[in-house]
Amino acid sequence: MTGYIIAPDMSRVGLTRRVVGVDYTGAEVTQEVVEERPLTIYLNSQEIVTAMTIGDYPEYLALGFLRNQGMLEGAGSVTRIDYDEELGVVVVRTDHATNHEEKLKKKTRTSGCAVGTVFGDMMEGLEGLILPRAELRTSWLYALAAKINTTPSLYLSAGAIHGTVLCQGDQPLVYMEDVGRHNAVDKISGWMMQNDASAADKILYTTGRLTSEMVIKCAHMGIPVLASRSGFTAWGVEIAQQVGLTLIGRLRGKRFQCVAGADRITWDADLSAIKDEPKRSGRKGGA
Amino acid sequence: MTGYIIAPDMSRVGLTRRVVGVDYTGAEVTQEVVEERPLTIYLNSQEIVTAMTIGDYPEYLALGFLRNQGMLEGAGSVTRIDYDEELGVVVVRTDHATNHEEKLKKKTRTSGCAVGTVFGDMMEGLEGLILPRAELRTSWLYALAAKINTTPSLYLSAGAIHGTVLCQGDQPLVYMEDVGRHNAVDKISGWMMQNDASAADKILYTTGRLTSEMVIKCAHMGIPVLASRSGFTAWGVEIAQQVGLTLIGRLRGKRFQCVAGADRITWDADLSAIKDEPKRSGRKGGA
Repeated sequence: MTGYIIAPDMSRVGLTRRVVGVDYTGAEVTQEVVEERPLTIYLNSQEIVTAMTIGDYPEYLALGFLRNQGMLEGAGSVTRIDYDEELGVVVVRTDHATNHEEKLKKKTRTSGCAVGTVFGDMMEGLEGLILPRAELRTSWLYALAAKINTTPSLYLSAGAIHGTVLCQGDQPLVYMEDVGRHNAVDKISGWMMQNDASAADKILYTTGRLTSEMVIKCAHMGIPVLASRSGFTAWGVEIAQQVGLTLIGRLRGKRFQCVAGADRITWDADLSAIKDEPKRSGRKGGA
Repeated sequence: MTGYIIAPDMSRVGLTRRVVGVDYTGAEVTQEVVEERPLTIYLNSQEIVTAMTIGDYPEYLALGFLRNQGMLEGAGSVTRIDYDEELGVVVVRTDHATNHEEKLKKKTRTSGCAVGTVFGDMMEGLEGLILPRAELRTSWLYALAAKINTTPSLYLSAGAIHGTVLCQGDQPLVYMEDVGRHNAVDKISGWMMQNDASAADKILYTTGRLTSEMVIKCAHMGIPVLASRSGFTAWGVEIAQQVGLTLIGRLRGKRFQCVAGADRITWDADLSAIKDEPKRSGRKGGA
């Protein structure tokens, strides 16, 4: 695919494994199944979290996770990131010493068995946050969906994985996949930080549901538009309206629903040129 | 639907909210969107976790969560469960005092940003665990899928929600839904505990992916068969093979794949009588 800075790399060793089973007729079948392995993230000398991840871009994942948790605030610049593949450990080092004993205690009490979020910390910094007012053209939305859905991906080849794509206008730029949709977003956040990428002119596309957690992550990253094939939760909608995020869901073929920021949409697409999604597109809305 | 002990209760107030937005033509649309609200779980005097949940069956969720985390071991019997709806707090009280300072510290270090799991604790107790050898008839699988997929549910009416169903033979018994698939499983676990339900003769059906976490929860609950419309992760498959769990995925229409325990399947279904899934079934495989 042209135009991507990072696209799914299907040739990468170790992201999937061949698993032998039987199908409904009892015949032996072999399938590619995505890997899922623990990655322990350290911030300086402190162990922060063990994430279950597919295993690519551990440095971006670690950096983006720490950033999205607000743990890099007051830490100065990131001086170094070391990844030990054998141990499954990534260490992010910063200028200034950090101590997140208190934050970790808080996390203990609030870490989500529900949707994997660190609820208490995540809401921090949202008060008073208003995202920049960004235009969204419907022609971009349709172009992005068409490009992303036909980009070769682990999802299309192995399934059971979430994708998140950083886009600008009608161009997908960075396409990350992971077993947890939060990881995919965190990897994008880490990439943006390492590459000093602007957020105000970007669009975040995800295959996952638009829960409060996804909306909060997007807001923390400063990206003013979030779009998904999947649906909403009520609280996700509420937060999007509060922070001025344009929130688009159920984006399939011609159809979508916008539940926040609809006044920023420019309706420039020629609908007669947009195809309805083929019934067997190979894509589903992740529940 | 007949035969259910608990089925989704669509008349229950407060599980969904009407949200106004615009559709792809710019026309105003109103849709039902599932709620997502914090529930803080206490074990005796100790605050354990805040889960994001749809809000039904908080007592089962709290009990099942604590049980699946192994936090009730050594606690004696559960003497009382108090739920304060206004505060969003549920307190589980046990015979013996509990102190999970150490466990919570461990959880801090291992709670999953990836798939919402508490990795360190979850793996505890799996060494040497072998599930009872249970028969699985393909006729049951097809009957369960047909019944569950046509049962009125929040998924069918609002989407963006996961379902998990406790079944016996060809009969679905307890159908729980939640914004996080882990919550749906935990609610089933809590129900089983409160009702002294046997596990060895049960089948667990879920709409979500068969990640390591789902397989581990099912194993901890002692249920020997786990089936899903969705796909696998490699580690989930590995753990299922290790503990003797029959693992069925991508169950749609006639089709399924079995990647662990296939030798326990009785192929008694008349395939010519099973319809392929209609292309627009309203059901998707959750990514």
